[in-house]
This record gives sequence, C-alpha cells and structure tokens, in this order.
Amino acid sequence: MSTLQFDGVDYQDGIASDPNTLGWMQGSPPAPDKRIRFADDRFFGFPQIRWTLSHMRELVPTASVWRGSSAASALGAPSGGDGAAIDTLEFVDLQGRRRQWAQALPDVYTDGIVVLHRGRLVYERYFGALQAHMLHNCFSITKSVAATLAATLVHEGVLDEDQTIAHYLPEMAASAYADATLRQVMDMQIGLQYSELYSDPQAAFWDYARAAGLRSQPHGYAGPTSIHAFLVGLQKEGAHGAAFAYKTVNTEVMCWLLQRVAGVQLSALLSQRIWSLMGCEEDACFTVDPVGTAMGGAGLCTSLRDMARFGELMRNEGARGSQQLVPSAVVADIRRGADPAKFAKAGYGLLGGYSYRNMWWVTHNEHAAFEGRGIHGQRLYVAPGAEMVVARFASHPIAASAANDPITMPALQALGRMLKGA
Amino acid sequence: MSTLQFDGVDYQDGIASDPNTLGWMQGSPPAPDKRIRFADDRFFGFPQIRWTLSHMRELVPTASVWRGSSAASALGAPSGGDGAAIDTLEFVDLQGRRRQWAQALPDVYTDGIVVLHRGRLVYERYFGALQAHMLHNCFSITKSVAATLAATLVHEGVLDEDQTIAHYLPEMAASAYADATLRQVMDMQIGLQYSELYSDPQAAFWDYARAAGLRSQPHGYAGPTSIHAFLVGLQKEGAHGAAFAYKTVNTEVMCWLLQRVAGVQLSALLSQRIWSLMGCEEDACFTVDPVGTAMGGAGLCTSLRDMARFGELMRNEGARGSQQLVPSAVVADIRRGADPAKFAKAGYGLLGGYSYRNMWWVTHNEHAAFEGRGIHGQRLYVAPGAEMVVARFASHPIAASAANDPITMPALQALGRMLKGA
Repeated sequence: MSTLQFDGVDYQDGIASDPNTLGWMQGSPPAPDKRIRFADDRFFGFPQIRWTLSHMRELVPTASVWRGSSAASALGAPSGGDGAAIDTLEFVDLQGRRRQWAQALPDVYTDGIVVLHRGRLVYERYFGALQAHMLHNCFSITKSVAATLAATLVHEGVLDEDQTIAHYLPEMAASAYADATLRQVMDMQIGLQYSELYSDPQAAFWDYARAAGLRSQPHGYAGPTSIHAFLVGLQKEGAHGAAFAYKTVNTEVMCWLLQRVAGVQLSALLSQRIWSLMGCEEDACFTVDPVGTAMGGAGLCTSLRDMARFGELMRNEGARGSQQLVPSAVVADIRRGADPAKFAKAGYGLLGGYSYRNMWWVTHNEHAAFEGRGIHGQRLYVAPGAEMVVARFASHPIAASAANDPITMPALQALGRMLKGA
Repeated sequence: MSTLQFDGVDYQDGIASDPNTLGWMQGSPPAPDKRIRFADDRFFGFPQIRWTLSHMRELVPTASVWRGSSAASALGAPSGGDGAAIDTLEFVDLQGRRRQWAQALPDVYTDGIVVLHRGRLVYERYFGALQAHMLHNCFSITKSVAATLAATLVHEGVLDEDQTIAHYLPEMAASAYADATLRQVMDMQIGLQYSELYSDPQAAFWDYARAAGLRSQPHGYAGPTSIHAFLVGLQKEGAHGAAFAYKTVNTEVMCWLLQRVAGVQLSALLSQRIWSLMGCEEDACFTVDPVGTAMGGAGLCTSLRDMARFGELMRNEGARGSQQLVPSAVVADIRRGADPAKFAKAGYGLLGGYSYRNMWWVTHNEHAAFEGRGIHGQRLYVAPGAEMVVARFASHPIAASAANDPITMPALQALGRMLKGA
C-alpha cells in the first residue's frame, strides 16, 4: 500500500512520504514547489512536516542548550547484535491486526528510534530526514523535561507548590491563573477557557503558537507577539483541581515562573542542571518567541540518543552513576502518578488507567512505565519494570497521539516483555 | 573616559557598553526597554549589538555546521602562563598614542580574543556576552572560509576558475555576472552597480540584507525575499577584472555556484570538508535566508577557539597532522596574494601594500600575514612568519574595520614580534 487513511483522509504512507524521495529543500536553490518556508505555514503540514521536524533551526530562531565540555557517555555497542531480533518482534495492534516491529515503523511515520536496555543501546534506526547527530522537535516531551526541572526546584524548597501563580507572577493576577496553585499547574488541573484541539484551526492553541513564533503572523496581525503577552489574557472556565485537562499554556506558565525564580533562562537552566551533566552528544535547543523566551511547552529539539539518555536518567531514579541530577524523590513521585479518576475525566479512550503527574503520562502498566508524549508521534517511554527506555521521533500526519497509539502502545509493551525475558 | 568618539559621534566605551551591565535581555520576560528583537532592526544597532553578535541563533533561523563525532583537538595549556606578558605588551597605535595590549581590548569593543603560538593557546579572554562555548557572528570572515572551500574545489578540478558564472548558473545570464569569471568573483574584481557603504542606510547592501533575512522586511515590503532573487537582479557597472572592489554579493554568487556544483548545502560542505575534521569543540552555524540558503557572505557564527583552529589549519598549509584538509597549493596561492596595484584602486588608506586573494586580505607584511576581516571588529589573523594565529570577535559600534584598524594593526604586529622572539 502507498497510502494510509486517518479520519477518512488518505495520506502517503511512511515510505512514500520520505522527504528525501520527495526532494524537499534539495537543490540550490530548491525548486519553488520543493521549498519549505516558515512564512507560509505549510511547514507543519503533511508531507512537509517529514522534513521540518528535523530542521527546526533552519526555520525559526532557537536558544541553545549547551551539552557541556565533558565527553558523551558510552551507550555501549549494541549488545543485541544488529537489532534483528527486535525487527522481527511480533505484536497485535489495538485494532487486532498482527504486525512485525520493523514493518510497523513506517506506519507511524518513524524518523528515528532508539532502545536502551539496562543502559545499553540495543536498537537504533533512522529514516528520512533524520540522522543521529541532528536535532528533532520533541514537541510535548518538552513539558516532561521542563516539569522535571520545576519539580526539582520544588523538592529543593526554591519553589512552593502550594503557592498561587499570582504569588510568583503578579502580572497574572487578572488571569485564569490568579488562584491556581503551582501544583495544579504542574498536574494540568486548571479550569481554563482555551482549546487544545489541534485539528481545529480556530483553537486557541494556534493563537498561542502564533504569539510564540511557531506560526507566522498573518498580514495585519494585531494579536499578542510573545508567549507572556498571550498568557496574561487567558480566562478561567470551571474550577481548578477538579480534573486533568491537557493544555500547553499551563507549561508555559510554569516555565515563566521557573525562570523568574531561578533567574536564568530555561535553556541555561536545562543545560546547567541536566544536559551538561548527562553525557550528551549534542547541544539541544528550544525554539524561542519574538522576545527570546523559550517555548517550554513544545519547543525542545534534541538528538534521539540524548533524549534516550534523559529517559535513562529517569529510569535510574535521577542518578547518573554517583551523581544525583534529579532527586530520586521527584522520580518516585512521577512513577507513583496522580489520581486516575481525575485523568479519566479528560476522556482519552485509549489511555485507560493512566494518570498525569509533573507533566509525565503515567501508564500504571505491567512495567510501571511513564512517558513523555509529543504530537505527531514523539515518545519517550521509560519502563523501569523492563529496564528499558525507548525514544522515538516521528512526523505523523496527524498531531494527536491517538492516531499512532493503536500501534505504539502494544509495540512498546511487547518489546518490554521481550527484553524483560532477555 | 566612558565614551569614545567615531565620526564625530560619542559612543559608550567598551566597558560602559558591557551588555551584562546594561541588562539586555535579562529577566523573565526582559523589561520592554531591555528587549532585543529581530523585528525592530535595533538588534544590529549600538549598544544592542554587544549582546546580539553572541546570540544570533536566538534572533534568526540558522543551519548547523556539525563538528563531527571526534574529540576536540588539544590546544595545550597556556604555555605563557596567564597571558600577563601579553597583557602588558606595549605598542603605538596609528594615531601615535602609546597603548598597552590589555587596556586596548575594550577600546576596540573586544568580545573575545584567542592567540595561538606554534599551535598552543597562549592567550584567551572573554568579555561581555561571549563565553568560550558560545557562537559569535564572524561576518565577513565567512567569505574567507567559503572561498577556501571554493578554491579547494578549483584545485581538485571540480570547478573551473576561468569559466563564466553564466556557465554554471544560467539564471545569471541577464545579470552583471553573465561574463564574469569565477576567478574574478573569487578575487572581487567585478564591475557592479551596488554599494557596500555600511554607513549609508540606502546602500544596496541593506537590500541584500533584507532579502537574506538578516534584516526585517518592512510592512508592505515587495522586494526580493531570498538571496538568489536578489542576486539575479544585479547589473553591471564598469569592467570585470580591472580593480578590487569589495562587495559581499560576489561571495553569495560564488557560494550559489559552489552549492550547485557540489550538490550539497554550504553548511554540509563546510562540515564535511573542514569543520568535522579539524577537531572543533562546537558546532558552527550559518544564518539562512527565508528559503534556507546560508549567508555565505556574512552569516557564519563560530566559537572563538574553533575560529582559531581554522586559522591554525591555514598556518599549517592546510594540514592537520598527517591529514591535508585544504590543499597546500591553495594556501600558498592565498599567501602569495594578488596584484597590490589592483587592490590600491579600492582606496583603503590604512591598508597600504595589501592585496586580496580567494577572499582573504593579504598583508604582505613582515610576518607574511593574511587575514579574514569582518565588520564590527571580527578578525582572523594568520601570521606564518611569527608562527602565530589570532582570532578576535568584537562588537564595535562602527561597521567598517577602519574604525578599529588604527589599534588592531599595530597591536597584532607588535604581538607577532614579541612571539617571534619568544
């Protein structure tokens, strides 16, 4: 087959949409119909997105997250040979179809996937525009990274999770967040008049994206031109603390507060606390808004191996060898999760039994896995019960994870079972 | 003194204009009067430029120049101790004033300076916004780097320097470059209706900058929106081959051709041929235009040490140990220079006896030095006769090098004499 259907629309499949085959941005200059430009907003459309997510810095301004001056950590030679055993792993997807691991990779538009088992690299594949040293947008895995920093500062007593947002950010006193606590923000239990329905071009999410510099501002645009300017206008709807409601702007509020209190930019904080101490191979970066503020909700771009290293740090309860980068209590708190009853109110049909804590998705499954999830197929799956970490970057035509979960979820569980028995 | 005067205008001096002291882009968010934004063009104004040149990626899109996966080359512990002997070096500037090296650094608005002697780091200083791992725009040193690549491909027979531009780029057949040879372009002997007078806001240079995405396009802008679109409109004035005339667009034409023939982007070519093989510490980057084309004339941003490594490669006749990255004949050709009589016609009063070859400025001085020069004080000074390389990044209020040459030139010559005797 050369197309796949989602929501009744046909899309070129993962092989037919390979950006190298399609010739995006090849040539000097690229032919007009092969150009991907920030200004026309098609850069996040399909199939352009298959090139875009590996080339974010060429499209928008970014702030570097320095990897530090020490050498990259060894991930070990693949102990499972060439990964052939994983390639042929069979599983049944949520629609009941029997699949093989390697054949399923293009069906979720995989750009790259890395598997660590007991800290060793046992599987690594790249497709299309992505290479090992390149950065790929991890979208909302950004939230899990940022909230891990915030939870660390809460643990250290620098931040008080019971304080209101207005306490830290007086500018927010007239917004929805005036009486919300930091803890409610970190667990996304905020009553907010704001839609994150990606498939709706009128959703407030796209206004946020325009203010944040991740979408072009149309001719005559008179809306907010920074993340902060957008946030102060958000209004309340319903109660805080009642239910999980996934809204990217919550993360931006958390990051604003984090930077205000820490006195450094998010990019510097991440470098100082984690990225420069974790043995990374590459600098990471954040996309930034027009006044230089990092998009803490969706703007982190990393190499795939470094993202896996971050997962491995979390699997090891925040320690790299003898060095405790994230307090073990913070990781334990994430693993423990939050109230599944509050999560269930959000209506994620495929995610039965999940909860959401410190901006991680907690599966409560047989391997005690918790995960970062980003639109268009980004995933960081940390499975302590299988001593496994999987980092995957993708460029799926559909933003919502529900479009790839029917394959992704059973594939990851099957791999965990296989490696646990290894 | 807390101000310096240039062209009759007072500017805060190098210490008073320290961007950290002035608080540019500090705070979350920065106060409105401390913001530096691409959109309002003040980012290249003084004193904002003191922050800007160390933060280019936060303002504009960029293409990475990967440093490769091998370790950084050792530059050796400073063999001259803490550099105190250099700090107290005395010299007489071109206005006849006696100065000390260290005290003169802020008078040319130095952001960082590194000196290598016989390949060892003997002096390193950072000021203001710059740190060792950060990238700084090197402006027109970019040209020397790009033309070194082009000359390498000429040496290899991939490019023919006697061919016309129209031969390689049929799109340029109706432009000034139709009958210009690649050699004339590489030595900037092109008769062109185009002004590079930076101090004139109406100069064509600024139209080029707007097309290339290095300046914002004003409301209702209807001009070219890519480097290529700007280049094809350039018209002839006078003859080719008659005189040296420094025009950045010549480099862009050369880079267009280079990428067309090499079949890869400039960022990838520089990484493959030099940056990934030279033992660099950091990735570099190019600023890119709205269709992703690197600004080969002025857009390279590097760490200071890596720029010094490139100078050291050139001092060593293109070899790093046993590996010949740039043909020795290419370096010899640059050292030999071109016709000083053709150079003299350009009227650079301070640069008596200079010539210009392969986009390097050839001093023909006592140390056989050749140099890359970038506006606002960027300099890469390669002095084989003194076994010395100096890389300096700066953010001088005046673009033209003539504003800092009266200090820079005698300082570098005095240092060469000192190290030669060491």
